[in-house]
Amino acid sequence: MPSNNSELLSIETCGTTSEDPISSDAGMSSEEDEKIVKKEILKEVLGKKIATYESIPKREHHEKFLRECMEIILKDAVFQGTSRDSKVLEWHDPVELFKIFDFSLRDKASSHDDLKKILKDTIQYSVKTGHPYFVNQLFSCLDPYGLVGQWLTDSLNASVYTYEVSPIFSLMEEVVLREMRVLVGFPDGKGDGIFAPGGSIANGYAIHCARHKLNPNVKENGIHSLPRLVLYTSEDAHYSVKKLASFMGLGTNNVYTVKTDDRGRMSIEHLREQIQKTLSEGALPFLVCATAGTTVLGALDPLEKIANICEEYKIWMHVDAAWGGGCLMSEKHRHLLKGIHRADSVIWNPHKLLTIPQQCSTLLLRHEGLLSAANSANAAYLFQKDKFYDTQYDIGDKHIQCGRRVDVLKFWFTWKAKGTTGFQRHVDKSFDNANFFLENIKNRDDFKLVIEQPELTNICFWYIPPSLRGCENDPDYHQNLHKIAPKIKERMMKDGSMMVSYQAQRELPNFFRIVFQSSALNHSDMLHIIQTFERLGKDL
Amino acid sequence: MPSNNSELLSIETCGTTSEDPISSDAGMSSEEDEKIVKKEILKEVLGKKIATYESIPKREHHEKFLRECMEIILKDAVFQGTSRDSKVLEWHDPVELFKIFDFSLRDKASSHDDLKKILKDTIQYSVKTGHPYFVNQLFSCLDPYGLVGQWLTDSLNASVYTYEVSPIFSLMEEVVLREMRVLVGFPDGKGDGIFAPGGSIANGYAIHCARHKLNPNVKENGIHSLPRLVLYTSEDAHYSVKKLASFMGLGTNNVYTVKTDDRGRMSIEHLREQIQKTLSEGALPFLVCATAGTTVLGALDPLEKIANICEEYKIWMHVDAAWGGGCLMSEKHRHLLKGIHRADSVIWNPHKLLTIPQQCSTLLLRHEGLLSAANSANAAYLFQKDKFYDTQYDIGDKHIQCGRRVDVLKFWFTWKAKGTTGFQRHVDKSFDNANFFLENIKNRDDFKLVIEQPELTNICFWYIPPSLRGCENDPDYHQNLHKIAPKIKERMMKDGSMMVSYQAQRELPNFFRIVFQSSALNHSDMLHIIQTFERLGKDL
Repeated sequence: MPSNNSELLSIETCGTTSEDPISSDAGMSSEEDEKIVKKEILKEVLGKKIATYESIPKREHHEKFLRECMEIILKDAVFQGTSRDSKVLEWHDPVELFKIFDFSLRDKASSHDDLKKILKDTIQYSVKTGHPYFVNQLFSCLDPYGLVGQWLTDSLNASVYTYEVSPIFSLMEEVVLREMRVLVGFPDGKGDGIFAPGGSIANGYAIHCARHKLNPNVKENGIHSLPRLVLYTSEDAHYSVKKLASFMGLGTNNVYTVKTDDRGRMSIEHLREQIQKTLSEGALPFLVCATAGTTVLGALDPLEKIANICEEYKIWMHVDAAWGGGCLMSEKHRHLLKGIHRADSVIWNPHKLLTIPQQCSTLLLRHEGLLSAANSANAAYLFQKDKFYDTQYDIGDKHIQCGRRVDVLKFWFTWKAKGTTGFQRHVDKSFDNANFFLENIKNRDDFKLVIEQPELTNICFWYIPPSLRGCENDPDYHQNLHKIAPKIKERMMKDGSMMVSYQAQRELPNFFRIVFQSSALNHSDMLHIIQTFERLGKDL
Repeated sequence: MPSNNSELLSIETCGTTSEDPISSDAGMSSEEDEKIVKKEILKEVLGKKIATYESIPKREHHEKFLRECMEIILKDAVFQGTSRDSKVLEWHDPVELFKIFDFSLRDKASSHDDLKKILKDTIQYSVKTGHPYFVNQLFSCLDPYGLVGQWLTDSLNASVYTYEVSPIFSLMEEVVLREMRVLVGFPDGKGDGIFAPGGSIANGYAIHCARHKLNPNVKENGIHSLPRLVLYTSEDAHYSVKKLASFMGLGTNNVYTVKTDDRGRMSIEHLREQIQKTLSEGALPFLVCATAGTTVLGALDPLEKIANICEEYKIWMHVDAAWGGGCLMSEKHRHLLKGIHRADSVIWNPHKLLTIPQQCSTLLLRHEGLLSAANSANAAYLFQKDKFYDTQYDIGDKHIQCGRRVDVLKFWFTWKAKGTTGFQRHVDKSFDNANFFLENIKNRDDFKLVIEQPELTNICFWYIPPSLRGCENDPDYHQNLHKIAPKIKERMMKDGSMMVSYQAQRELPNFFRIVFQSSALNHSDMLHIIQTFERLGKDL
C-alpha cells in the first residue's frame, strides 16, 4: 500500500463517514453521496478515520479518538510534562521550529491518526509550564483539580452573561467573589466584583470605576467633559497601568510614577509630592494604584499609609494584588497585606500565587452598583426586562465583555477540593521554600542578593561566576555582570534544565528573579536549583 | 461505619496522603506528621482519597481520579449533553438552585468521591450549549476537535507573550492570523493581528488603533490633546461599541448612531449626514464601525459604499464581522462580505459561525506596526533586548493584556482537522438549514417573519398563537403579541426542549431570533423545531 493513500483519501472524503447517518441529508446530491460511499469503502479498507466537518461529537466516530487524545495528554503533558525526570523544554529557535513543526493549514481534512501525531508534537515543542523547574513567571504549575475544572469548563462551553445560559456559573461567581471580599476584609464581604480576562484589564476596570464615581457624566460625555485626570503608581508597578491609561484615553503621561524605597515600596513622601504637583497644575488626582506584590521584586506598598493619603485627598484607592492576593488565604502571611481592606478596589489573580490555571483574574470592589452604572447598556436581546425569572443574576451587563468564558469553575472546584486550609498550606510552603532558598544563597560567594529581605516569594539575585568574584571594584564589573544572566538563561533554555527569568532594573545590571509559587517544590529542589546555576555558570 | 466518617477524615487530613512522599518535608512538626499518619491509616481503611494541596499532578494519587473525571465529562457532558434524546437544560430558578447545589466553600479538603459528585452535579444543572436545540446565541455547539484543542491548551497552561514561554503558540498565532487576513483579502495577507478576549475588547482595539493613527501623541497625552472624536455605527450594531467608547474615555454620546434600512443595514445617506453634522460641530470623525452580521437581524452593512465614504472623508473603516466573518471560509457565501478587504481593521470571532470553543476572537489589521506603536511598554522583565534569540515573535507587547490564555490552538487544530473545505461545508450547511427553516415557516399562518429575506443564518419571526391569528388589526394586537415570546420561552426553558432567544427591537414587539450555526442540524431538526413552537404555543 503506498504511504500516501491516507492523504489521497482525506482529500476526497473530506470529513464524511459511513458511521454518520446524519450526513446523508445534509443537502448533498445523490451523485455526491455515491462518491462518498465509494471513498468510505476505501477508507474502511485502510482502516483510517478522517475528521468530520459537523460541529458535534458523535460516539461512533469520536469516542475512541477523544479517549486516545486524552491518553496522549495525560501521558505526555500532564504526567511526563510535570516530572523532574523530563526537560522543562526542548529548545528550537523560530526558524528551526517553522521547519520541524507543520503549522500549515490546508483545504483537506486530516485523519485522526495525523491529528494524534499533531497533538504529540504540540506537547513536545511546548514549554512545560507545570514542570517544577519552570520558575520563570508569576504563574506556573499544573494543578490537578484546576485542570479538571478547565476540562469541564471546556466541555460545557458556556458564556457567563445571563442566568438563563449559565445558571451554575452565574451563582458560582457571586459565591466566590463574596468569599474573596471577605478575605480582603470588606465589611461582611459586601461590595461587588467580576472575573476579568487578566490583571491588566482588571486594572482598567478599576480606573473606569474610579472615573465614574468622580463624575458619572463621563460615561456619556467622555473625559473631555472633565479636567485632566491624574493617577499614581510606583515606578515598580506593573506596566499594565500605563497601557490601560493609554487605552482608556488618559495617556501614559497622566500616570505619575512614584519613587520606591530600597526594597521597591512606594515612597509616601513622593506620592504626596506628586499629588501636590498635580493640584498645582490644575489637574485632578483621582486614583492611587498601590501594588501588593510588584512583578520583579515582590514588594508590598505601604497600604495603610496610602489609605491615609487617599482619605486625606479623597482619591480612589486601588490595590493591584494580582500577585500578592493569594497571601490572604494564609493565617500566617495575610498580615503582609495589612490595610488592603481600606481599598476602594482590589485586583487579585488566583492564577498566580494560588496556581489556578490560566486565566483567573478578579476585580473586587467595596462599592455596590458602580460596575453596573459605569458599564450597563441594557441590550434588549440579552437582558430582557420581561423574563420569567429574577434577573439579578444576569450579571453580564456589569462587564465590558459580552461573551465571556467561564473562569470561575476551575477556581471554585480547586477551592472545594483543597479547602481554604489547603490553599493556606500551599502558600505557606511557597514561603518556606523561598526562605530556604534565600538562606542557602545568602552566604555563598557565587550568589549575591538584590534585596536582602524580600517580602514575597520572589528572590532576586545575581549569579557571580568565578571570573567576576572579588572584582566588585573593577570599572567594568557592572557591564560584565550584566552579560552573565542572559548567558546563563541561554544555557538553561538550551539544555532544558530549568527556566528562571532575568531583567535589569534602573541602574542595576541584569539579575535573576526566581518565583516560588509551587507547593510541589521541596528543599531538595532548592538545592538542585542552586547547583544548576553553579553548573551553568561556573566557566563564565 | 457512620456515613460522616469521610467528612470527619477530610477535616483532619486536609490534603495529605501516604502516597505522597513529598509532603513530609513541607515544614511540618513531627507531631503533625504523626497525626497525619494516624489519619492515613483510617483513610486506608475507608478506602477514600482526599484532595492533596500540592500544585502538581501525581500519578499515584491523581491518575485514577483524572481518568474517572474524564469519564464523567465524556459521558454526561460531551455525549449525553449533545444528544437529541437529552434535555437542553434542567430548569431551576436561582433560589432553588442555591438550595439543591452545594456552592459553599469550606476550610477542609474534599474527597475525590465528593469531587466526582460535584462534577456530575455541575453538568446536570448547566445548560448544554452543545445540544442541537440550543439555538439561543451567536455561539453554540461542542466541536469535538475544538474540544481536544481546549483540553490540550489547559494541560499546557501557557501564556502567549514571549516566544521563550510559548514557542508553538506564538508562531501558530502568526500563521492563523495571516491565513485569516488572506481570507479577508488584505494584499498578500499582510498586516497585523491579535487574538483578543472577545469581540467587545477587539472592537476597543480597533478604536485604539484608529485613534493612534490619527495622532500618535494620544498614547502619552490622552484624548485631552485632541478635538472631540466621533465614531459611527448603526443603531443595530453590537452594544460593545458604546461600552468600549465609554471605557476608552470617548463617551457613549460620541458614538453617533446611524439609521438602518428595512433589513437592518446601515443607511449610507444617514451616515453621510452624521459625518457632516460632526464636522459642523467642530468635532473630528475618526472611525466608522460597519457590521457584517448584526446581532439580532444578521444584517450586513453595505461595505463597499461605506469604504467609499471612509475614503472620501479619510476615516478609519472598521468592520465588526465577529458573527459574519465565518462566511469567508465558504466559496458560496463569501460574496456576502464583499468590500471587507477595504477595511482598515476587521474583527472576526471563530467561536461564532465556525463553532470554535469559547473564546476565540481576533482583530485583523491592514496596517503593520500600529498595534505595537499604540501599545508597547517595553517591560524590561519580559521583553529583554539582550535575549539570545530573534525576538520578533515576542508578540505580547502588542496587547493591552500581559498574561494571556492560548486561544489559537483550538482553532488551528480544528482547521487542521477539517480543512478549509470542512469549514466551508459547515457554513454552507448552516445556510441550507436556515433557508429550509425559512421556507417552511414562510407560508404557515402560525409564523410571521420579521425579515422576509435575511442575509445570514439568523431567522427572526413571531409565533402567532391561535388566539391572535387574524387579529392583526386589533388595537391591542401588538401588545398581546409582545407577551407571547416570553411565555413560550418560559415553557421551552421549563420543559428543557430547546432554547431560542427573543427580544423587542425599536417599535417591533417581542420576536424570536433563531440562529443556525450548527452543522449537526438537519432538515428534520428544522421541522422538529417548528413543531416544538407549535406545541408550546398552541393554547396561547
